[in-house]
Amino acid sequence: MENYSFLPNRPLKVAVLGSSGAVGKELLKILAERDFPIQELVLLSSARSAGKCIKWKEQEYTINEVNKTSFNNVDLVFASAGSSISKKWLPTIKDQGAILVDNSSAFRMIDDVPLVVPEVNPQKALTHSGVIANPNCTTILLTLALAPLNHLSKIKRIIVSTYQSASGAGQLAMEELKFLTQQYLNGTPQSSQVLPYSLAFNLFLHNSSMLSNNYCEEEMKMVNETRKILDNEELMISATCVRVPVLRAHSESVNIEFEDKVDPCFASEILKKSKGLRVIEDYETNRFPMPSDVMEKDDIAIGRIRKDLSNPNALELWLCGDQIRKGAALNAVQIAEILLPKKHE
Amino acid sequence: MENYSFLPNRPLKVAVLGSSGAVGKELLKILAERDFPIQELVLLSSARSAGKCIKWKEQEYTINEVNKTSFNNVDLVFASAGSSISKKWLPTIKDQGAILVDNSSAFRMIDDVPLVVPEVNPQKALTHSGVIANPNCTTILLTLALAPLNHLSKIKRIIVSTYQSASGAGQLAMEELKFLTQQYLNGTPQSSQVLPYSLAFNLFLHNSSMLSNNYCEEEMKMVNETRKILDNEELMISATCVRVPVLRAHSESVNIEFEDKVDPCFASEILKKSKGLRVIEDYETNRFPMPSDVMEKDDIAIGRIRKDLSNPNALELWLCGDQIRKGAALNAVQIAEILLPKKHE
Repeated sequence: MENYSFLPNRPLKVAVLGSSGAVGKELLKILAERDFPIQELVLLSSARSAGKCIKWKEQEYTINEVNKTSFNNVDLVFASAGSSISKKWLPTIKDQGAILVDNSSAFRMIDDVPLVVPEVNPQKALTHSGVIANPNCTTILLTLALAPLNHLSKIKRIIVSTYQSASGAGQLAMEELKFLTQQYLNGTPQSSQVLPYSLAFNLFLHNSSMLSNNYCEEEMKMVNETRKILDNEELMISATCVRVPVLRAHSESVNIEFEDKVDPCFASEILKKSKGLRVIEDYETNRFPMPSDVMEKDDIAIGRIRKDLSNPNALELWLCGDQIRKGAALNAVQIAEILLPKKHE
Repeated sequence: MENYSFLPNRPLKVAVLGSSGAVGKELLKILAERDFPIQELVLLSSARSAGKCIKWKEQEYTINEVNKTSFNNVDLVFASAGSSISKKWLPTIKDQGAILVDNSSAFRMIDDVPLVVPEVNPQKALTHSGVIANPNCTTILLTLALAPLNHLSKIKRIIVSTYQSASGAGQLAMEELKFLTQQYLNGTPQSSQVLPYSLAFNLFLHNSSMLSNNYCEEEMKMVNETRKILDNEELMISATCVRVPVLRAHSESVNIEFEDKVDPCFASEILKKSKGLRVIEDYETNRFPMPSDVMEKDDIAIGRIRKDLSNPNALELWLCGDQIRKGAALNAVQIAEILLPKKHE
């Protein structure tokens, strides 16, 4: 494996591929907020979105259609334009010696591609061959909760049911949810165009491709990616992924079986001390995480950490996280930050 | 135990207590649809709703405030006005020799009170002491799915996460969901008055009282009532109840561990032949139950019946059911139908 490891120790030339989408826009916002060392910014997209203008740090940029010369002298590429686009352009990106931090699922399960949640397995980012994969949004949120608990006692089995927002299907799905909800309230319900069914006061099982085991791709991403990130191939996981009429934050109901008994209060204390998450848990006032708590927030929120009534070695918990931010854009920027030399001086 | 058993074999005098609420209104609709043998109808409520007019079978009725003489000569009472009201009026109802079919949780766990889902344990309704309890809505839907499978192999353990509609909190909660969603879409989000938080594009853990084991009342209703209905005190259940921005249908993600291996295709066939439910399951087109499939429908919908990837003796499934109808009003009317003598001629 080649080891590009760190980024150059100077302000960088950074390309954002898929810069007009929900994740791309959030990524640009986060790069500015965190003052990521950018000398030159290149905004790229498919032909459809090319020509659009975006303001970044008081400067106007035009989004260009990606082509063979787009990555000339680029140091770092963030891609969130889908698997086929990432696959198509990876050779060109590598030819330029640039590092790709990829939001798609294209390379996540390839052996020599690190799959990184910076709070969980940051060291993995340092050994790569030019591409580092950003995990699936639901997996990022889940592993943030699991990793600290896995140190208390090895996790054996997870049963998870998700409550996933429209944003996971992109900007257009969010707009459709608002539009179809307004139509419903007007008494003129309409069919969906972006998602397979209307989400207006409705919900449905995740519509990613169904696999031969009768689990959908989204569910198997949670299974396979969680195993890779926690470095535990034996971890048993069963997932049910559901799309709900929420705009941009995912929630998850998680049942965790450990090798040994884990005290829920102790688990809660450990989670309170862990990075990237906030425990919201007030049993007196019945106050636990909700999507509205985490909208546009970096930290995910966890609560209702309690004994599973049906298994003495299991805990139940509930979590919410902003899908666009920590579930995608923020995690990608944090991966790139690991590669900044100054972080390791 | 006294055994009032059947209702008189003549058109009945029926009282509906809580007749202006979401469940009460649906109950009246269902009594008409199913041509329940009513000679005289008495509509009752608390002082707040008294005086309202309701049309039933082309006739106008005035809702009267419930008082000591309200149940004179009444044969059958449907109550859906909350536990304290049911408790207060049960002695008066019994004094009149009337049978109470009660939607509240007041008597559900009392030993000599049958807790009945007519498709599951109808025979229980025939031995009562004047009151038969209608289970919690989530429990009715869950047991409809569990009971046929329990015949294939004894169920050992259930892990369930719910997606509960606003209707479970009553008519005002449904109206609030629509109102707050419109405010959100108008760009003027507002706080909730009925539910503890806004459900507009948001969701939160069920807000029923939290018990000392850190499970809320709603979750423990699922645990205790499911055990009673399935007549299995050893059944292990852990539940997470969540309120979602859906108007009147509940959904549930259910993990079921059996004593033996159960083939998911066989389970699906058994469910297809079972009463009160419809299997919606097309893996080719990714079509499974959604709340919009069951709105104002009698049958609940079940699908995604598949092997749990983490346990060879477990299945996962997904179900949706109309909370107001099968989750409350329809089930109550079906209980009363068991008590009609003609049903047993």
